[in-house]
Amino acid sequence: MSFEEMWAALLPVGRDAGTGGYHRFAWTPPELECRAWFLDEARRRDLAVERDRNGNLFAWWDPDGTRGGAVLTGSHLDSVPGGGAFDGPLGIVSAFAAVDLLRERGVRPARPIGIAAFAEEEGARFGVACLGSRLLTGAISPERARGLRDRDGRAFADVIAEHDLDPALIGPDEDLLGRVSCYVELHVEQGRALAEPVGVASAIVPHGRWRFGFAGEGNHAGTTLLEDRRDPMLPFARMVLAAREAAGRHGTLTTVGRVEVVPNGVNAIPSEVTAWLDGRGPADDAVRRTVAEVHEAARDAAREHGVAVELAEESYSPVVDFDTALRDRVAAALGGAPVLPTGAGHDAGILAARLPTAMLFVRNPTGVSHAPEEHAEPADRLAGVEALTAVLGDLAGG
Amino acid sequence: MSFEEMWAALLPVGRDAGTGGYHRFAWTPPELECRAWFLDEARRRDLAVERDRNGNLFAWWDPDGTRGGAVLTGSHLDSVPGGGAFDGPLGIVSAFAAVDLLRERGVRPARPIGIAAFAEEEGARFGVACLGSRLLTGAISPERARGLRDRDGRAFADVIAEHDLDPALIGPDEDLLGRVSCYVELHVEQGRALAEPVGVASAIVPHGRWRFGFAGEGNHAGTTLLEDRRDPMLPFARMVLAAREAAGRHGTLTTVGRVEVVPNGVNAIPSEVTAWLDGRGPADDAVRRTVAEVHEAARDAAREHGVAVELAEESYSPVVDFDTALRDRVAAALGGAPVLPTGAGHDAGILAARLPTAMLFVRNPTGVSHAPEEHAEPADRLAGVEALTAVLGDLAGG
Repeated sequence: MSFEEMWAALLPVGRDAGTGGYHRFAWTPPELECRAWFLDEARRRDLAVERDRNGNLFAWWDPDGTRGGAVLTGSHLDSVPGGGAFDGPLGIVSAFAAVDLLRERGVRPARPIGIAAFAEEEGARFGVACLGSRLLTGAISPERARGLRDRDGRAFADVIAEHDLDPALIGPDEDLLGRVSCYVELHVEQGRALAEPVGVASAIVPHGRWRFGFAGEGNHAGTTLLEDRRDPMLPFARMVLAAREAAGRHGTLTTVGRVEVVPNGVNAIPSEVTAWLDGRGPADDAVRRTVAEVHEAARDAAREHGVAVELAEESYSPVVDFDTALRDRVAAALGGAPVLPTGAGHDAGILAARLPTAMLFVRNPTGVSHAPEEHAEPADRLAGVEALTAVLGDLAGG
Repeated sequence: MSFEEMWAALLPVGRDAGTGGYHRFAWTPPELECRAWFLDEARRRDLAVERDRNGNLFAWWDPDGTRGGAVLTGSHLDSVPGGGAFDGPLGIVSAFAAVDLLRERGVRPARPIGIAAFAEEEGARFGVACLGSRLLTGAISPERARGLRDRDGRAFADVIAEHDLDPALIGPDEDLLGRVSCYVELHVEQGRALAEPVGVASAIVPHGRWRFGFAGEGNHAGTTLLEDRRDPMLPFARMVLAAREAAGRHGTLTTVGRVEVVPNGVNAIPSEVTAWLDGRGPADDAVRRTVAEVHEAARDAAREHGVAVELAEESYSPVVDFDTALRDRVAAALGGAPVLPTGAGHDAGILAARLPTAMLFVRNPTGVSHAPEEHAEPADRLAGVEALTAVLGDLAGG
């Protein structure tokens, strides 16, 4: 299966015919179909397949059966709601294609090469991004993970149990981590910062998610005087505007992308509005100050309207500086490449706490990501495969 | 079945155990269960039951078989999302109880007395309030009604066809209207304006619903620079605040109670935000000016953020002044009663275009409506039944 054939096989899975956006949430049918595709591609190449106890998938090319010192690559198969085709799958399809190229070129690697598909990277179902790699490395406690719930109220523990994973066994896997010497993730670039087909990551900037709960009093839209209202929609709106203003002041990025309104009826003053703030920035203190100012604005507006407000930090990832030696070696294997930071979280950022990790970015002409317009030109995709092939060949030796 | 027994039978139907709010949307199982209850209560009293071709239910007490000049009472069985127990059902339970009282007192009415349960009064499923009475009286075209869709995209025509109504036959029913001489609806008061147990309506103030669609560009929350964003959440937030400010300026009421975000993911800048504005006020021009100013603010904010905005008027009901002669006769039958306007729409307001109509309000100690706190004390409920009994006895003669 060529790169193009693999790409075409994945393309229709979980795609909304109307918007063209993808809905591949962890452990839902479209994502399960992607997992089945992964296992098929691995078996087609005689790679040894492994599903770890956290639900991450691995395909191992280990010609000498050393089971140690492996060079791991890969990415993820799940998507945000209405996401693009490239975020995640590009890294996995490119990895299979790179293995094919190495074999065509007669390379027999001295170290095993592994291809990983990490589970729930987007956090779109259970609310914590990089859940699979966090569990693998111990960055989230098994207790907390078991209790995470999706929008239908289903617990992570119950969902994975339906797929023959034992919720009691999730958590750090030192045996698996001990078999890996480094991780290199290829990913579509998610902004417009990359002018060449392929670049190398310097860092992941700090980023986090905060949940604002506004609780007022539900009431009739037509009979409740303005002065009798405790309408949570109003402080929520102020919080949205305050988030943008604070980002401008601190050179950070803030987004309110998800809102839930109860009861969400046209002629009912809401009783509750819940909103999620995504905040990122070049440095921890800038992000922290941004969120604190949004919180203060939300509190002020809530007080004015007789509404209660609660803030919960759902996740926070401090800055990740990728391993400099590995980054330089990767860039050298490419004969030089632009080096750039990213505002997006990745499994490579989580694994960086335990292993040398690096990332390759493939140019995105639209600069759009997490939306159907996300793109990489066919020529750039193949440049990405060539780059990954060179890096894996260099790191695995042989 | 006493008032209390009827009330207790309806109380659990469609009630959310967590919030105590009701979810009885037209043609969904809880509302169908309420309809079955209505037919049982009618048959238990040997009332002739009729479902008109628009899906409205009627129970007729017509001792002389005159089939003409009827006095109609009733209300509706559906609810807003998370609504209270009283809005709608109180008028229907009170009507059955009033028929019982008239019979106990040996009244044999000279005119038929009918009890109506109008369909989709809240518009919570298909977006147009008083849909059943609008169809009956010709206030909405059958073509438009057939094409209305619920949140799952199902067309009104397809839904009613599943319940043995012919979508080709919906629309004005002159035969039925011709059999009715007047309509008196008893309803729970929805504000705090009524200090006595029972009052009489003077008018329904102008009210309408407007849909604002904000279309921007979906993108990645972590990698899209502020200046590259076309984020529809920002002009939406400005519109929410502008609505409250315009209401303050014009002495009107505005509410943004329903919001839909696409794709509604934490780490995705939305591509679309749709929000509904409920606007009401003492006079048409005040409401019109309010909505125009909200629209202007939304347009300005949208332009600033590179977002497109569309405004659609989903419904608008000008002021309804209830028939003065009928209102005075109703008040006289009660031995005098406070007279007050309401900001809430009702089927009585729709029927007022074709028939003399009147409304009785039962005191609501919380002033809350469209929410679980909506209430009427048991003694006030019985005062409402007594008042309705007096009014029906007077109007039906005998």
